[in-house]
Amino acid sequence: MIVHDGQPFNAESPLGQLRQNFLTPKDLFFSRNHGSIPEVNPDGYRLTVDGLVDSPLELSMEDLRGFPKKEVTAVMQCAGNRRDGLIQVAPIPGETPWGAGAIGNARWAGVSLREVLRAAGVGDEARHAAFSGLDEVEGTDGESFDYGGSIPVEKALGPEVLLAYEMNGEILPLEHGFPLRVVAPGYYGARSVKWLSGITLQEAPSDNYFQTHEYKLFAPGVSAETVEFFEGLMLGEMQVNAVICEPADGASLDAGPVYVRGYAVAGGGRRVERVDVSSDGGRSWVQADLLEGADDPWAWSFWEANLDLLSGEHRIVVRALDSSAGTQPATAAEVWNFKGYANNSWHGVRVVAR
Amino acid sequence: MIVHDGQPFNAESPLGQLRQNFLTPKDLFFSRNHGSIPEVNPDGYRLTVDGLVDSPLELSMEDLRGFPKKEVTAVMQCAGNRRDGLIQVAPIPGETPWGAGAIGNARWAGVSLREVLRAAGVGDEARHAAFSGLDEVEGTDGESFDYGGSIPVEKALGPEVLLAYEMNGEILPLEHGFPLRVVAPGYYGARSVKWLSGITLQEAPSDNYFQTHEYKLFAPGVSAETVEFFEGLMLGEMQVNAVICEPADGASLDAGPVYVRGYAVAGGGRRVERVDVSSDGGRSWVQADLLEGADDPWAWSFWEANLDLLSGEHRIVVRALDSSAGTQPATAAEVWNFKGYANNSWHGVRVVAR
Repeated sequence: MIVHDGQPFNAESPLGQLRQNFLTPKDLFFSRNHGSIPEVNPDGYRLTVDGLVDSPLELSMEDLRGFPKKEVTAVMQCAGNRRDGLIQVAPIPGETPWGAGAIGNARWAGVSLREVLRAAGVGDEARHAAFSGLDEVEGTDGESFDYGGSIPVEKALGPEVLLAYEMNGEILPLEHGFPLRVVAPGYYGARSVKWLSGITLQEAPSDNYFQTHEYKLFAPGVSAETVEFFEGLMLGEMQVNAVICEPADGASLDAGPVYVRGYAVAGGGRRVERVDVSSDGGRSWVQADLLEGADDPWAWSFWEANLDLLSGEHRIVVRALDSSAGTQPATAAEVWNFKGYANNSWHGVRVVAR
Repeated sequence: MIVHDGQPFNAESPLGQLRQNFLTPKDLFFSRNHGSIPEVNPDGYRLTVDGLVDSPLELSMEDLRGFPKKEVTAVMQCAGNRRDGLIQVAPIPGETPWGAGAIGNARWAGVSLREVLRAAGVGDEARHAAFSGLDEVEGTDGESFDYGGSIPVEKALGPEVLLAYEMNGEILPLEHGFPLRVVAPGYYGARSVKWLSGITLQEAPSDNYFQTHEYKLFAPGVSAETVEFFEGLMLGEMQVNAVICEPADGASLDAGPVYVRGYAVAGGGRRVERVDVSSDGGRSWVQADLLEGADDPWAWSFWEANLDLLSGEHRIVVRALDSSAGTQPATAAEVWNFKGYANNSWHGVRVVAR
């Protein structure tokens, strides 16, 4: 793992290893934390469901396991994934310089969130499901608070959204939210709250700092000095994105046929429709073969293309198209924002073939 | 109107006039036709609903008006809108060279499609709702056939999809599909079949020529000579797009403050989140004010920005961001395809300020 911070713990996967397993092993799965990793006693654990519901609930792990078990294969991606590409355009101080490994794909199992919400009875005025975690985050004023975030109630009622207690067939690991986490497929990971303690149905989005100040996309001219935090787009659905995992950036290769391999994702229930690969920086393109995951709107898609490289230096780039014909921007400059989120510009590596 | 073809009739709106009314008057609304405009006697008219349904239906206009009346303001856009920008990259022979006026926004009223489908009872195997029109299209073999197309059944069951018999408070005009048309908001107009004669619930998408051969997005290397028609993306949801309606391309203006005005759209239920305008071809951006429609995922959004232009030539460009953080490509070359569909690259005008 490539460790960016020790406390809170932030680490991403090396791209070459990431591409070796369609289901990312837990030890390779990126960790994005904002505070402590809480150690929760599962016996005393209770999930509260309150707010605009007919019957507030307090559920033990045993209660939760009493609901039908549901499995979903879903990609989890940090909104800061590929921030390194934005930093090359202009500095982004104070934010983790994630490469393209702040992403992983797992088989999650647990309770369908909508089954729990139906048990509580969602009120007509409810517009957002707000989640609270048990991790304590230190605020800028020195006071600590719990991590939180929300998703729209229509999303919360989607069949794909889980309260997960398993990851890849094992008990959810401590650092991934044991004993229970939200898995909101198609959304950035920030909303898939770990160490979940409560769900509140409410009219407005979460007022947690991480919903109101972080994970917001601001216009290109906005800076830390000029930002008005009530503005900006609260990030939810991921955008279409594709990354080259092999060959590595800077690799020296034999001239001739070269396999290029990577991952692609689409957000919001859209699928990866097509992946284009170029060996000349985007002047001409070949279509990659879509492998595992391409039929699944929630998983990532693996792809590969066989290029024939002449001797010399090449800039290999990739771009994907999603099933709603959504495209990726060609350059990171087009999507630069001062918080460094949601970089889905064409990904590229430079290689030398001899 | 700017008339491209007389038979079938194809005409678009001049951009300056288009921007004067949030609801496009019927006489300014673009016309995109593939065949004859049928004259239908409403008394003898029957809509059939069949295929994978529990109870096939045959509904008169009186039957249809017996369902609750529902209104939706929705933009209708030809998938070929802005093809002219693609043609500047490379020729697209045989296709209408639409400018940016193959779009309009109207207040549609009629029956909720899902009410009709519920009355028929949608079978478990139904995946697509296929529509047939009464317009006769001449095929390449000289045989004529009816226009048709389909949408996924989940879309067909959305509350926004209408079988419309009114447009802007009046009886649906002849050239817009009298007596009944589909209005599938958030989708390209090709699926909003006019002069609707039948709805068939089925497992596969429509096998109509206009679903299987036209309105498909092919990869950049595909040409009329190399195309495999089973490939390509059947266009459905529109992508985020924005167009400058004023000032006109090539305009001479007084230096100083200049209002730039236009429309923006987002597809698939996403909203227009932000519109950026640049007076230097995209090096720097100001945020436009979002006016009517910006809160509505199905209508277009009007926007305006006040630029201060120095003397000289300027390339003013616009781009929009949608509520899922979807972006527009900077150049038409990035989205060029041999059929010339779905150009949502940054739109620009050149002006001279004196």
